[in-house]
Amino acid sequence: LAEKKVLIVYAHQSAGSFSAAAKEAAVEVLKSKDCSVEVSDLYAMKFKATATAEDITGEVKNPEHFRYAEETKLAWDEGRLSADITEEQRKLQEADLVIYQFPLYWFTVPAILKGWFDRVLTLGFAYTKEKRYSNGIFKKTKALLSFTTGSQETMFSPTGINGDMNVTLWPLQNGILHYCGFQVLAPQIFWAPADAAPEGRSAMLAAWNTRLQGTVCCENVRFHDTNWGWGQEYG
Amino acid sequence: LAEKKVLIVYAHQSAGSFSAAAKEAAVEVLKSKDCSVEVSDLYAMKFKATATAEDITGEVKNPEHFRYAEETKLAWDEGRLSADITEEQRKLQEADLVIYQFPLYWFTVPAILKGWFDRVLTLGFAYTKEKRYSNGIFKKTKALLSFTTGSQETMFSPTGINGDMNVTLWPLQNGILHYCGFQVLAPQIFWAPADAAPEGRSAMLAAWNTRLQGTVCCENVRFHDTNWGWGQEYG
Repeated sequence: LAEKKVLIVYAHQSAGSFSAAAKEAAVEVLKSKDCSVEVSDLYAMKFKATATAEDITGEVKNPEHFRYAEETKLAWDEGRLSADITEEQRKLQEADLVIYQFPLYWFTVPAILKGWFDRVLTLGFAYTKEKRYSNGIFKKTKALLSFTTGSQETMFSPTGINGDMNVTLWPLQNGILHYCGFQVLAPQIFWAPADAAPEGRSAMLAAWNTRLQGTVCCENVRFHDTNWGWGQEYG
Repeated sequence: LAEKKVLIVYAHQSAGSFSAAAKEAAVEVLKSKDCSVEVSDLYAMKFKATATAEDITGEVKNPEHFRYAEETKLAWDEGRLSADITEEQRKLQEADLVIYQFPLYWFTVPAILKGWFDRVLTLGFAYTKEKRYSNGIFKKTKALLSFTTGSQETMFSPTGINGDMNVTLWPLQNGILHYCGFQVLAPQIFWAPADAAPEGRSAMLAAWNTRLQGTVCCENVRFHDTNWGWGQEYG
């Protein structure tokens, strides 16, 4: 059995947070299962969030009309993307599984993690017109959103005030992950840990621990590899 | 008739872009209609995208377990938010209409604009548990997403490969704008201007110009002010 490689992209400011505890639990369990684990701790890295011409080393092709996708495509072809992007692309390329660990900010990822998607998943490296969705470049890689909410679960039910969580996650899970070909695993949702009692938080971490022990790293997760569809099932 | 105030939050790197032209068209038309217009040009401002303790002047309450929403709530109460956030909050508070002009990046706003939402729409200033959705703080303010896509319109139809654009926009339009109470106007979508011929781009700008002339600034836009719902109609 080959060693599995896991990349955890982690976006919380505080080592005392529930998100940090969830990240630490994943590192521990996965290492104990003989996975090799890398963590991109975005705030600690002061990861640059904004997509600018500085992401390209050397000259940009068209400074008067700078187009990020085209310019980074060219820079990627020529090995001229900035070092921080290149390093994240190396981690991503080696990974068998990517876990994104973050607090839900405004119904999606925090800006620093959106910046990771905007800057790391460049045209050519992560997708082309021909290679996307079921033919996507990362079709051999699994990806999982693991996040905390501020709201209770009932608020994100189909009849809840915030609407169905599956709809909220659609742009992330379909528009980013599945678009690049990733096999999207069921999201790990920690409902309002800040409002939970200590034993509630412990129970949530224990469930995550169990899930990581049982399936995430070593078992193959079933995924309906359709081009897209509401009936998408998670493994 | 009182002068209307419009805030344009603009997120493109290049003055030569279609997004820049759309922003300029809005500035011109709205000024000609006696609106006062402010523009937050996020890349030019080098707007900070990431939510960190530096957004608070002076001491944070709980540095070991930094919680952004709670810390910025307290800082807002005490007038200790950073100058750049305070200035954007001032613009937003004065506005009758906010136009967000951006290129769609990964099915949502670019990270720099997500950072604007994350940092400017602080707890207390933009929402509280009691004041959200139909009781939201900005219920007298209109908001409109105006954006370019890379994909053609057919790809964002309900049966298209990218899924229904209304689903893609749900977290932004419901989860951010409507959550804060904004009256959400129909989005202005510029479909794949980069792939259009010059006359196609001109026609798109002309349609935007006409819309701005006719309704956006001066007419009252009908909006079904429900707490939430799929059947939401745009004016």
